[in-house]
Amino acid sequence: MKRYRNGEIWDFEHEIAVPGDRPVILGLDGGTTSTVCICMPVLPVSNPLPDPLPVLARAVAGCSNHNSVGETAARETLEQVMADALSKSGSNRSAVQAVCLAVSGVNHPTDEQRILNWLRDIFPSHVKLYVQNDAVAALASGTMGKLHGCVLIAGTGTIAYGFTEDGREARAAGAGPILGDWGSGYGIAAQALTAVVRAHDGRGPETSLTHSILRTLGLRSPDELIGWTYADPSWARIAALVPVIVSCAEEGDEVADKILQDSVEELALSVKAVVQKLGLCGEDGNASFPLVMVGGVLEANKRWDIGKEVVSCISRDYPGALPIRPKVEPAVGAALLGWNFFMKETYKEAYNR
Amino acid sequence: MKRYRNGEIWDFEHEIAVPGDRPVILGLDGGTTSTVCICMPVLPVSNPLPDPLPVLARAVAGCSNHNSVGETAARETLEQVMADALSKSGSNRSAVQAVCLAVSGVNHPTDEQRILNWLRDIFPSHVKLYVQNDAVAALASGTMGKLHGCVLIAGTGTIAYGFTEDGREARAAGAGPILGDWGSGYGIAAQALTAVVRAHDGRGPETSLTHSILRTLGLRSPDELIGWTYADPSWARIAALVPVIVSCAEEGDEVADKILQDSVEELALSVKAVVQKLGLCGEDGNASFPLVMVGGVLEANKRWDIGKEVVSCISRDYPGALPIRPKVEPAVGAALLGWNFFMKETYKEAYNR
Repeated sequence: MKRYRNGEIWDFEHEIAVPGDRPVILGLDGGTTSTVCICMPVLPVSNPLPDPLPVLARAVAGCSNHNSVGETAARETLEQVMADALSKSGSNRSAVQAVCLAVSGVNHPTDEQRILNWLRDIFPSHVKLYVQNDAVAALASGTMGKLHGCVLIAGTGTIAYGFTEDGREARAAGAGPILGDWGSGYGIAAQALTAVVRAHDGRGPETSLTHSILRTLGLRSPDELIGWTYADPSWARIAALVPVIVSCAEEGDEVADKILQDSVEELALSVKAVVQKLGLCGEDGNASFPLVMVGGVLEANKRWDIGKEVVSCISRDYPGALPIRPKVEPAVGAALLGWNFFMKETYKEAYNR
Repeated sequence: MKRYRNGEIWDFEHEIAVPGDRPVILGLDGGTTSTVCICMPVLPVSNPLPDPLPVLARAVAGCSNHNSVGETAARETLEQVMADALSKSGSNRSAVQAVCLAVSGVNHPTDEQRILNWLRDIFPSHVKLYVQNDAVAALASGTMGKLHGCVLIAGTGTIAYGFTEDGREARAAGAGPILGDWGSGYGIAAQALTAVVRAHDGRGPETSLTHSILRTLGLRSPDELIGWTYADPSWARIAALVPVIVSCAEEGDEVADKILQDSVEELALSVKAVVQKLGLCGEDGNASFPLVMVGGVLEANKRWDIGKEVVSCISRDYPGALPIRPKVEPAVGAALLGWNFFMKETYKEAYNR
């Protein structure tokens, strides 16, 4: 095993006997608010998978998106959360067979390669390493590790990501609030704030959003929204207003209703673009494929149900879409991906020998 | 005169004989990139005003928007630029009769009061102080100090601001990029970047913006736009892409053309909202009023002329709009405002005596 860069993080390993008889997989889901690492035993091949899945340990740390916290902090967070999960499992790095790291901010092969280099510095060379955008873990959490179908995530941000069974992939949206993620929680809330300003200016129709949003934020006048908005650039803080907009729409406010309708169309459009590019719907347009739905905007489960509307909008064009609400978290999806990847590589190596 | 907070800034005053025979006015224009201070002699009442206007000195400093640089830095910048202008004029604070300070970021009476308190700490009590949003100085630069009509500013940001002759005022837009300033340079450029991402995703039509913007930024793929966009949150950096979009529209790109058309409608809508609220067009809708046009987006003067299109869009509803392109800078407008304010207050005091 290599000499490791960061001694302290891995100090616990000296106190653990090498558990050579229990090989493990690490699955990581790194979002913009937190990072979760799951340590799972290597499962025997079985269909269906055991339910519940055996999880040895779960560890949580802060943000590991390098765009948000910088490379050094991101790397330290990832390393720490893996060490925590192994330590909690009574395991260590020599038991690890594969690591699947799914982090937000992986948008380009250079991002992937940089993270692979980090990981290679931590784990011995036989460990299978697999780096992906966090959307891929969310897909796997709905398909129990199979990379097939399309996932739609809509929380503070939004992205649609899909895979064909033969390994082609495509994405749509996920480019953040400046680059047109209008269907996201942030997008919905920013449009509602804009509607309040426009009504106040005389550029748009009156809306009950004005009263509801000002009351929620403890402000007296729409003029004060400007100061509130720019005082803290956190996207999640603005996205937290989504329930207020849903309530206004449920009470019949046309402006709020229009914002949610537009969001439904935007979210459905991202999925349709991915389905189209990958031909997930087959040549006749009716083939079935998993459509995994994840994130606060889709799970609100209110009378005005954004997730339900998105599914019906997609189903009109692609009746084969099979909506799935995952029962496990994305980090488990990442671990299942890591396991699949390990099995495939191991069989391939055995075959080539 | 009071004891002054910041000794060093005003040290030059010890070296200047008090020029009691030459009373002066200070006009300040504080934008998000720079702050300009003009020192003008108090003019005798004349109509028309002397051309060119007598300017004793001009000083320039950095950003003085408290939302952007914080209160302490904003105050120091304002104090320093006033001291520089007075020092260059061979004058000092005892010669100052009025100060008109027009700074961006003044959106609420509490902003105004805070800045008045700063100024009151610097100048003796007989000096007339006048604090406004920077849009008001831009209006005055077109009307030579008269607060009547509407100004439309469209540079990195945008705002419409208007006054009636009897002193009522109204504004529209100016709430920044998150709150719907879609017609601004930033708004135009962000929509163009979004169009590139959407075309790449399969969510929108192909556009020549892709090739032109990537070439301008030295990027190879639309995927790299995400990293470029979020690497530096400066609005001006994104707004700098406007000429690329204008070129694409001139060459017939429909996506670019639509973005500019939308921007024209947005900008015209801000002006119409102000005109409507203030009744600047009179009861029959045909009364004439000054329409001052300021900022890089309106001054591009290309074949696709955004400013010209905005004026025709406004004129269709309000044929009395008289477009004015100011010949002096906003800080001179601020000084003229300060002068008008001083004259009015002085006559009022004389009358009440």
